[in-house]
Amino acid sequence: MRTILFPKKENWEELCRRPAIEKSQLDDIVSSILRRVKSEGDKAIFEYSEKFDGIKLTSLKVSPAEIQQSVDLVPENLKAAIQVAKNNIEKFHRAQLIQEQVIETSEGVSCWRKNVAIEKAGLYIPGGSAPLFSTVLMLAIPAKIAGCKEIILCTPPGPDGKINPLILYASMLTGVTDIFKIGGAQAIAAMAFGTESVPMVYKIFGPGNQFVTKAKEMVQQEGISIDMPAGPSELLIIADITANPAFIASDLLSQAEHSTDSQVIFLTDNKAMLEKVKSEVDVQVLRLPRKKIACEALEGSMIILLSSLEDCICFSNIYAPEHLIINTTGAEKFAEKVVNAGSVFLGEYSCESAGDYASGTNHTLPTNGFARSFSGISTDSFLKKISFQEVSRNGIVNLGPVIGLMAEAELLAGHKNAVDIRLKSLKNV
Amino acid sequence: MRTILFPKKENWEELCRRPAIEKSQLDDIVSSILRRVKSEGDKAIFEYSEKFDGIKLTSLKVSPAEIQQSVDLVPENLKAAIQVAKNNIEKFHRAQLIQEQVIETSEGVSCWRKNVAIEKAGLYIPGGSAPLFSTVLMLAIPAKIAGCKEIILCTPPGPDGKINPLILYASMLTGVTDIFKIGGAQAIAAMAFGTESVPMVYKIFGPGNQFVTKAKEMVQQEGISIDMPAGPSELLIIADITANPAFIASDLLSQAEHSTDSQVIFLTDNKAMLEKVKSEVDVQVLRLPRKKIACEALEGSMIILLSSLEDCICFSNIYAPEHLIINTTGAEKFAEKVVNAGSVFLGEYSCESAGDYASGTNHTLPTNGFARSFSGISTDSFLKKISFQEVSRNGIVNLGPVIGLMAEAELLAGHKNAVDIRLKSLKNV
Repeated sequence: MRTILFPKKENWEELCRRPAIEKSQLDDIVSSILRRVKSEGDKAIFEYSEKFDGIKLTSLKVSPAEIQQSVDLVPENLKAAIQVAKNNIEKFHRAQLIQEQVIETSEGVSCWRKNVAIEKAGLYIPGGSAPLFSTVLMLAIPAKIAGCKEIILCTPPGPDGKINPLILYASMLTGVTDIFKIGGAQAIAAMAFGTESVPMVYKIFGPGNQFVTKAKEMVQQEGISIDMPAGPSELLIIADITANPAFIASDLLSQAEHSTDSQVIFLTDNKAMLEKVKSEVDVQVLRLPRKKIACEALEGSMIILLSSLEDCICFSNIYAPEHLIINTTGAEKFAEKVVNAGSVFLGEYSCESAGDYASGTNHTLPTNGFARSFSGISTDSFLKKISFQEVSRNGIVNLGPVIGLMAEAELLAGHKNAVDIRLKSLKNV
Repeated sequence: MRTILFPKKENWEELCRRPAIEKSQLDDIVSSILRRVKSEGDKAIFEYSEKFDGIKLTSLKVSPAEIQQSVDLVPENLKAAIQVAKNNIEKFHRAQLIQEQVIETSEGVSCWRKNVAIEKAGLYIPGGSAPLFSTVLMLAIPAKIAGCKEIILCTPPGPDGKINPLILYASMLTGVTDIFKIGGAQAIAAMAFGTESVPMVYKIFGPGNQFVTKAKEMVQQEGISIDMPAGPSELLIIADITANPAFIASDLLSQAEHSTDSQVIFLTDNKAMLEKVKSEVDVQVLRLPRKKIACEALEGSMIILLSSLEDCICFSNIYAPEHLIINTTGAEKFAEKVVNAGSVFLGEYSCESAGDYASGTNHTLPTNGFARSFSGISTDSFLKKISFQEVSRNGIVNLGPVIGLMAEAELLAGHKNAVDIRLKSLKNV
């Protein structure tokens, strides 16, 4: 980790800049996959599965028998743990489903918004070394609470043609409608355009490799909504002298072990703490099975000494971290000043792992500085808020002249006429 | 208008398909504008203003004197009308600012979300024939309510180097921070990247021509958020035998006069009503100053007879209109069944013009079928909901083992360690 002592304020923006993500040169490959899936459907997908996943499938949809087998394979203690996480995530995401009041904006003019689910949601869950069943919970639970009718999930099969039982179990538990053994850009294409097996969806969610990310970017240009732009995961920790350096090191490493491009930043106002955390990181990293990944991630990371905790918060707001841990005395006070962050963890026991799995907040969060303008996934992400208005006879009499004057000033006589014709009919009565 | 009687259900999807928007071949032009503004700043903008707007500017920012002049130019009755609209829009958008409760998801684990404004918002208001000051209200009012610190507005100057006084007046009234005389792709570039005169923003809102739309699409790929994808404006009306055909015709025409590619659709279960509305449209259109535009829009539009009002709602849900008027007896009952729409107008007096200007709902809405997955602009569009969590000592004791088991199952030992190290420290106490 790069150690920086009291950087000048004018350099903070520069320090907060993310390492440039190489714009993947995958346009041609991915756009050809999208085109082929769009025109050839399942046939193209079977061919890509053979080519990319090394598996000759005969059917894309996971069968009820396969799901049942997975249920038997998950140990009971893990099932119980998943249930606790599910309950917490449900509680938090259900509370987000607020029905707003009807507002009488003028006499006789009532306006309101109604939560209506996006009918068809598509979830992508990556394959690879770690079975990210927690991401199934984080996406399918709010989709279900929002009321999505169809929740489709795509995830790549292993070389044996099977899907990790934990992913199947979590999908079953959360009410995913259909699971498909499809990975990569072809999965995004299948959900965006529909095939013989896979229903088309209206919005696509979930993390993925560079092919998946590029495919999501491209289908967005064709009018399919996506959850948010993708980037490497990040954690920023602010701690004062009262913090336990071992806790901080463990949190930094829990982020660093994600991937080699994860970025972790530690800010403190105390030189001794800075040194202690550095030593703890050096000790703890050696114990990690994924230490190679973590070490590479740490190379791109920073420990920074600033003159005050206020400065730490100010720096963090410029950086706009995906995850922010405030491990200080009176963390709530500093939390008030957070302007840009995805999810914030307060106090010494609020480790990022808690939010990753089970505190109840969502772990799908804006990275790469997008926390300046994006929220993490929530129940809102799976619904629209449709506005309604009802103008009564009295309402149009009150508001009609206002509308007419404004329409006239915008040179839209037809807009004015829609009001005038109603006002006239009322005078004639 | 194309008249279609009892189309078969299997053809509804086809009927609901929007006319293919020609993918604008502006990539090269727009990307060169973006690049030049990014590298040369104001200098490039001055050159583009001369080239595209035919005006040699000496300063981009609108001066306080210019704003004051505009205030004097707006007639008092129009000022009063704008004030009524402003009050209604404020009432409705302020009610959207709901602070959610803190949820104790497990014992000792508290989670909540906090509304935090996007610090810097950029609004684009087109120039051209009609001065869309109502769009200033619809964007700047929720931005202000959300709490955006900087609200920048760009709009092209006329050939006299001036901006329409109504746009300046509305900007002043709603608390826009700074107004710039910049139009087209160069305005989007200026707000996305910042120049000597124009501050960089985090999210860009507002309608525009094909250059503006393409520029928004392109800066989105570079990590600047945008409000929503653009498309021509639309209105679908459902009416039964009880409706006034003249009202319906006036509503169809108020939409048709927007632009030649506006789409209007009229659905009814009553043949006589269909004929009456057609005749009324033919009569009323001739009275419109913008009849040439309206007639061309009507050519691409449809009047459809269906067997029941339930079928009309079903068709509308497939179409997913930007604006939906339900002009029937018991409109509220049918409103319950609306799944895909931007904004819904209930009953005979709820004309679309009301929502366009003054009912209080927002008029920036999803077009082109995006109402399946997008909401219209609201106060939410100008803020993030940051999640917070506080896990107490008791909380980590309760939830720690759950997190540990799940992290282990995802093969993320570092995540488990962040919990274990805390649990261990508590045992040692």
